[in-house]
Amino acid sequence: MDSNLDRELARARLAAPDRLRALFAPSSVALVGASEGSGWARFIVESLRTAGLPGRLVPVHRRNPTAFGEPTVASLRDLDDPVDLAFVMVPTDAVESVLDDAAEAGIRNVIVLASGFAEIGDEGRERERRLADVAIDHDLTLLGPNCLGYVNSHAKAAPFGLHLVPPLQSGPVGIVLQSGALASAVMQFTRSRAIGVSLLTSMGNEAIVTAADVIEYLLGDEDTRVIALFLESIRDPARFVALADRALAAGKPLVALKVGRTPAGQAAALAHTGAVAGDDAVVAAVLRQHGVVRVDSLEELLTTAGLLGYVRAPEGRRMGVVTASGGACDIIADRSADEDIEIPDFAPATVDRIAAVLPSFAAVRNPLDITGFVLADPKAAASDAGVVALNALIDDPGIDFIFNAVALPAAPPPDPSLLQRRMDGVAAAQRRTDKPIVHFTNVCTDVSPFARGVLAEHGLHVLGGIELGIRAVGHALAWSDARSRPVASPGQGPALVEVRRGGPWSEAAAREFVAGFGVPVVPAELVTSAAAAVAAADRLGYPVVLKVCAAALTHKSDAGGVALGLADEAAVRAAFVRLEALGRDHDGEGVLVSPLRDKGIELFAGVRIDPAFGPVLAVGLGGVWIEILGDVSLRALPVPADEIERMLGELRGAALLRGARGEVPVDVAAVAKAVAALADAAAALGPGLAAVEVNPLWVRGAEVEALDVLMVTKEQGDGD
Amino acid sequence: MDSNLDRELARARLAAPDRLRALFAPSSVALVGASEGSGWARFIVESLRTAGLPGRLVPVHRRNPTAFGEPTVASLRDLDDPVDLAFVMVPTDAVESVLDDAAEAGIRNVIVLASGFAEIGDEGRERERRLADVAIDHDLTLLGPNCLGYVNSHAKAAPFGLHLVPPLQSGPVGIVLQSGALASAVMQFTRSRAIGVSLLTSMGNEAIVTAADVIEYLLGDEDTRVIALFLESIRDPARFVALADRALAAGKPLVALKVGRTPAGQAAALAHTGAVAGDDAVVAAVLRQHGVVRVDSLEELLTTAGLLGYVRAPEGRRMGVVTASGGACDIIADRSADEDIEIPDFAPATVDRIAAVLPSFAAVRNPLDITGFVLADPKAAASDAGVVALNALIDDPGIDFIFNAVALPAAPPPDPSLLQRRMDGVAAAQRRTDKPIVHFTNVCTDVSPFARGVLAEHGLHVLGGIELGIRAVGHALAWSDARSRPVASPGQGPALVEVRRGGPWSEAAAREFVAGFGVPVVPAELVTSAAAAVAAADRLGYPVVLKVCAAALTHKSDAGGVALGLADEAAVRAAFVRLEALGRDHDGEGVLVSPLRDKGIELFAGVRIDPAFGPVLAVGLGGVWIEILGDVSLRALPVPADEIERMLGELRGAALLRGARGEVPVDVAAVAKAVAALADAAAALGPGLAAVEVNPLWVRGAEVEALDVLMVTKEQGDGD
Repeated sequence: MDSNLDRELARARLAAPDRLRALFAPSSVALVGASEGSGWARFIVESLRTAGLPGRLVPVHRRNPTAFGEPTVASLRDLDDPVDLAFVMVPTDAVESVLDDAAEAGIRNVIVLASGFAEIGDEGRERERRLADVAIDHDLTLLGPNCLGYVNSHAKAAPFGLHLVPPLQSGPVGIVLQSGALASAVMQFTRSRAIGVSLLTSMGNEAIVTAADVIEYLLGDEDTRVIALFLESIRDPARFVALADRALAAGKPLVALKVGRTPAGQAAALAHTGAVAGDDAVVAAVLRQHGVVRVDSLEELLTTAGLLGYVRAPEGRRMGVVTASGGACDIIADRSADEDIEIPDFAPATVDRIAAVLPSFAAVRNPLDITGFVLADPKAAASDAGVVALNALIDDPGIDFIFNAVALPAAPPPDPSLLQRRMDGVAAAQRRTDKPIVHFTNVCTDVSPFARGVLAEHGLHVLGGIELGIRAVGHALAWSDARSRPVASPGQGPALVEVRRGGPWSEAAAREFVAGFGVPVVPAELVTSAAAAVAAADRLGYPVVLKVCAAALTHKSDAGGVALGLADEAAVRAAFVRLEALGRDHDGEGVLVSPLRDKGIELFAGVRIDPAFGPVLAVGLGGVWIEILGDVSLRALPVPADEIERMLGELRGAALLRGARGEVPVDVAAVAKAVAALADAAAALGPGLAAVEVNPLWVRGAEVEALDVLMVTKEQGDGD
Repeated sequence: MDSNLDRELARARLAAPDRLRALFAPSSVALVGASEGSGWARFIVESLRTAGLPGRLVPVHRRNPTAFGEPTVASLRDLDDPVDLAFVMVPTDAVESVLDDAAEAGIRNVIVLASGFAEIGDEGRERERRLADVAIDHDLTLLGPNCLGYVNSHAKAAPFGLHLVPPLQSGPVGIVLQSGALASAVMQFTRSRAIGVSLLTSMGNEAIVTAADVIEYLLGDEDTRVIALFLESIRDPARFVALADRALAAGKPLVALKVGRTPAGQAAALAHTGAVAGDDAVVAAVLRQHGVVRVDSLEELLTTAGLLGYVRAPEGRRMGVVTASGGACDIIADRSADEDIEIPDFAPATVDRIAAVLPSFAAVRNPLDITGFVLADPKAAASDAGVVALNALIDDPGIDFIFNAVALPAAPPPDPSLLQRRMDGVAAAQRRTDKPIVHFTNVCTDVSPFARGVLAEHGLHVLGGIELGIRAVGHALAWSDARSRPVASPGQGPALVEVRRGGPWSEAAAREFVAGFGVPVVPAELVTSAAAAVAAADRLGYPVVLKVCAAALTHKSDAGGVALGLADEAAVRAAFVRLEALGRDHDGEGVLVSPLRDKGIELFAGVRIDPAFGPVLAVGLGGVWIEILGDVSLRALPVPADEIERMLGELRGAALLRGARGEVPVDVAAVAKAVAALADAAAALGPGLAAVEVNPLWVRGAEVEALDVLMVTKEQGDGD
C-alpha cells in the first residue's frame, strides 16, 4: 500500500454498501476446511440449510471426498464457477493462502473464522494487517477474522457458526454485534419474542468490514427499519456520529448496548478488543446528542428495537392504557412516571363509550382496567370491551399513543372464535389509525408457536412484559425528541484563527480572545503599579478583586494569586504589592483589577478534547454541584445555543437557575448565548485547542460575566 | 360483635396459621353456583383437576342435576359430609345465605368470588362488614370476597379462577398477591422460568384473611423458603414490620413489589383498593430497614425470589464469573458495578487450574470467558473447561460466590452425552460446596420442557438472563446485609415522659427538653433586658446571635426574629430592642443569646409522624442538599446509633462529611450519638409527639451542637 490513506480508501471500497449487499446475500457458499469433526462446521452447514440457501453449498477439503453429504473440492481453485461467498474455517496460518485461492477462483466475499489475530496482541495485530493487505490486493470483501458469520433471513443466507434454531423470522430489525458468542443469545431472544430480523451479523475483528460499514449498509437496506447494536468500542467516532445523524434524519433508529459504562466494564471490554475506551460520560452525551438510543441489557436492546421496527414511534407523551388487571395498571403507572410518560384523563366521550360496555361497578379511568368480569359470560357483547376501549382511545384527541394489553394463549383456546374475533377487532382498530398502538403482555415469556401464528395473521407485534415495554416506550419517546431537535451540522463552526500555540495563556490574553467571540467578561484592567491599581479600582468601583496575571500560574487561587473583596485603597495597595511579587517569580504580565461580584450564581463552562469525540463542551454549577455531585452536562461540538439551554435544564441543580432558594431567576437564554460564544472561541482554535474554560461564569438574572478565563493551546504539530 | 377489639381478635383467630393450613390444603371442594356457562367456574374446575385434587369435587347448583360431569347437590345443606372448602361463586346478594348453608353443613373454609364489596365504595364497605360478621359468627375462614382463589401445588389444591397451564412446579416460593388478575402473569412467568411455587394466593378484599395473615402462615410453612409479595397497600404497618423482622430473623426473605412509588402509581393503586397510601419515601425506608427486598417489576420479583428460594444468599460481594462469551463478560462487569458487586482477580492457583484446560490464546481473568473454542472439537477434555473453572472458583478463597453461565438447549442435542457430562459436572461441583453458585442464561427466555427435565434431574435452578440475574444477586446481597445488622427491638425506646401537650414549644423549652436526653445544644442564655443580653454576650464571646424566644413564632427567621453575627455591644442592644418588641407581640419569653458558629457543616435532623409507620427520623445536610436535591435519609424509630451512621453515609453529600471541599472531616459517631439522643427525646413524647427537629445541627470535626430546636406536641387525646 502506498499510504495509510490509500489503504483506508481501498478498505472502504471493499466495505461499501454495494459490496456488503453482495456479501450478505450469497446464493452459493463454499466452506473451506469443512471437517465434519468441527462443531463450527457442523453449525455452519446446519445454519445454511435451516435458512434454505437458494444455491450451491460446496465443502472444500483437501483429503475427504465428501463432507456433510456433499462432494468436496480439494481447493477453491478447483471450482468451475466461483461461489458468491467462501466461509474460511482453516487454521490461522492457512488463512492467507486460502484467500489467494479464493481470488484465483473469482470469489469476492469471504468470512474468516480463525482467531489468533489482533485480539491476541502485537504479533496478531501484525498478522491481521497482512491479512487485510491480502484482501485489499485481491479485491476481497472480508468479514472477520475471528468471526462467527451472519444470518440474513430475507436472503435465506445463514453462514453462521452457532446453533440456529428455527423458525427464522424475517423482519425489520438489523443487528450488528461486536461479539460473536452473544449472537446465540440475541437470536434466542428475538425468536422467543417473535422479533423479526433482517440481518444479524457478528463483526469479528473488523479487519476490512467494520461495524460502521454495516450500519451504513443497513441505513440503505429497505428490509431494515431499525438497527440494534452491541458495541464494545466505537472505532471511528467521527464516522459513527455522521452515520447517527444520517440515521436520525432518515428516521431509522439506532439502538445501542454500548458496554464499558463502568471502570469494571471498560476493563472487561478492553480485555476482549484491545480497543481504547473513551470517557463513558462523553460517549453517553454524544449518543444522546445524535439520537442514538442507549440501553443496558440485551432484552432492552431487542425489545426497544422491536417496538421501533414494528410501530411508528410516539411523538407525544400522553399515553392511554388498556389492561385487564388493576395490578398491571398500578405497575404501569409507577413505571410511566419514571419515564416521564403522562397518563392523562380520558375525554368525556371516551369515558361514555367505554362505560357503555363495562359493568356499572367498573371505574372508567386511565390507566383502564377492563376487569376480568367478561370471564363470567364470555359470550356477552362486553367481551369485546377491550376492542371498544381501544377504538375509543384511538378517537380521543388527548391521547398520543396507546399501551394495550394483549392476552396471548400459548395454545388454541377451547373456543378459538372468541380469540379470533378479539384479534380481528384489534387488527382492524390498528389499521384504521396512524396513532401508535404498543401491544404488550404482562410478563416477558416466550411467544408460543400458536401465538406467533395468531400475531402474524393479524399483523401484530407484542412487547414482552410491562417492564421492558414501558422502558422501550420511554426510549422511543426520547428518540422522537431527538428527531424533533435540529442537528447542528459540523460545518457550522466558526472560521479557524491562527493563534500562538503551546501551553497556557495569561488570563488577560485569554479574556481578550474569548471576548472577541462575544463572551461577556467582567471589566478588568491590567496594571503594573500600585498607583494604577488604585486608579483602576476607583474607576471600577469598590470592592474589587486583584489577580496575578501570569500564563504559568494556571492555578492562581491555590498559589495565593487572588485577593478578593478589597474594600479600600490601602487594601488594594497591599494586595498589589504581594501579587506583583508573586507574578514576577512567574514571568507575569502584571495584576488584573476587577469589580467584585458577590451575589448571584456561579456556573462553569469549558471545552476540552475527548480522545475519541474531539472538542466536548461541559456546563455545570459550581461548588458542591461539581465537586461532590459531578453535576455536569456534556455535548460534543458543535452545539447550537438552544441545545445549551437544554444542557442547563438537565443539571440536577437546574432549580437554582429557575429561582430556587431565593435567587433571582436566571436568563437562561443569555447564559446559553455566552456559552455558545465560548464554544465558538474554542472551535476557532481548531487543532490548536487543548482547553478553554470559564470558571466561574457569574450570573445574576440577565447579567452574565466570565469572572475568570483559562486557555491552553497545543504545540504546533501535536495532534494537527 | 361487642367491640372492634373483640371483632379483630375473632377475625385473627379465623386467620391464624393453623386455620390457614386447613384453608390452603383441602382434600375436597364444593363449588357453589357452578354453572357451566361461567368462565370462572370452568377455570376453577379445570384448575382443580389440573392440580389433581385428592378428594371430592362437588358442584352445587339449585337446578342442574349435573355440572362438569359430576352430579350436583342443590345446596351445601344437602351434603352428607362437609367438604374441606367451599368456593362460593354466587352473585353478591346471595353470598351471605350460602355462608349460612356452609356453616350448617359443617364447612369451615370458604373462598368468595363475588365483587361488589369494599372496592365499590361506602355501600360495599358496609356489605363487606356484614359478610365478615357472618363469617365470624359461623367460625368460617373466608378468603375474599372479590377473590380468584389460590394454587397450592404441594397440596395439589388449586381452587383458582384463571386458566392454569400445566405443569405445576412445586417449590420454595410462596406468593401473596393483592391483585387477582396478575396471578395469571405470575404463574406464567414462574412456569416459564421453572420457578417452583409452594402457595400462590390472590387476596381479594381481605375481609377476614389478610395478606399479613398469609405471610405469617408462610413463615411457618416448611415448603416455603422465600415469600414474594405484590402489595397495593400495607394495611397494618406495625404488624407488617413485626412479620418482616420475624422473617429476617428466620432467614426467610420477603421480596415485595410495592406499587404506589409515584403519585401516578398511588392514584392507580387507590383506584383499586380504596386504601390509604403513605409517603413512599417512608415505605421505602421501612422496607429496607426491616430487610424486605423491594423490586420494580414482576420479572424481578420472581427471579429474585427464585434465587433466594433455591440458592443460599451470598454473604460477601466478591463474585467469580464463568461465561462462554466475552460480550456477556462486558455486560456483567458493567451491571455488577451498578450493584456494588466486586469482580476481583483470581488467585494464582485458580488461574493455573483454568489455564491448563484452555487454549493458550485464552485470557484467564475474572470475569472468565471460556471462549467458544470447545466447539472446534467438543470431544476434547477442554469441553469440560466450564466445570473445571467452576471447581477452581469454588476452591478460591477470594471468591464469595459464583455467577455461572449455563447453556440450556431447548431440545435434546445431537450428542446428549456431552450435555449430560457437563451437567453432571456442574451438579457435582455444586454438591461439594456451601459457596453460593448462581446459574444464569444470557437472556430471559422460557425454560423448555426438555431443559426443565435436565435441571430437575441435576437439582439446578437457572436465573433468566444477565440483567435479571445480576439484579437478583444485588437484592440477595442487600438482604444478607440487612440480616447482618442488629434489628432494633420496638421495646428499646426510652421511658415515656409527661409533658405539656398541644402546639409548638418555645425554643428555650425545646432546648431544655432535648438537652435532657443528651442532645448537645449551643450555649444560650434567655434574657429579658438589653443589659442582660450584653452581659450574656460578654460571657459567651462575640460575635453572637440573638433570637426571639416565642412558642408562637415557629418560623423565626422568616418573621425577622433572628439577628446573626452581632459583633459588639451596640449591635446587641439594637437587636435586643427589635427582637424583644417582636416577641412581645407574640407572647414571647424573651430573647436567646448564643455564640455564632460560622464555620463547619450544617445538618438537620428531625422526627415526624408518618400516618402509617409512626415516628420517622430524617437526617440530611442543609442548603441545596435538602432544598433542591431532597437528599434525606429516613428510618422509622427505633433506630440504633450505628444505623444513624449508615443513614449519614447514604446521603449524596456524604463526601462533605468525610472532608471534601476542604472541610474538617466530621466525627460521624459523635453526630450519630447526638441524633440518637434527639430520637430518644422524640420517642419519649410517646403519643404526644408531633414533631421534633434540630435545624441546623452544626458540626465541625468532633464538635456537634444543635443551633436551633423546634418541638411541637399534639393535643391530649389527639391520636392517643
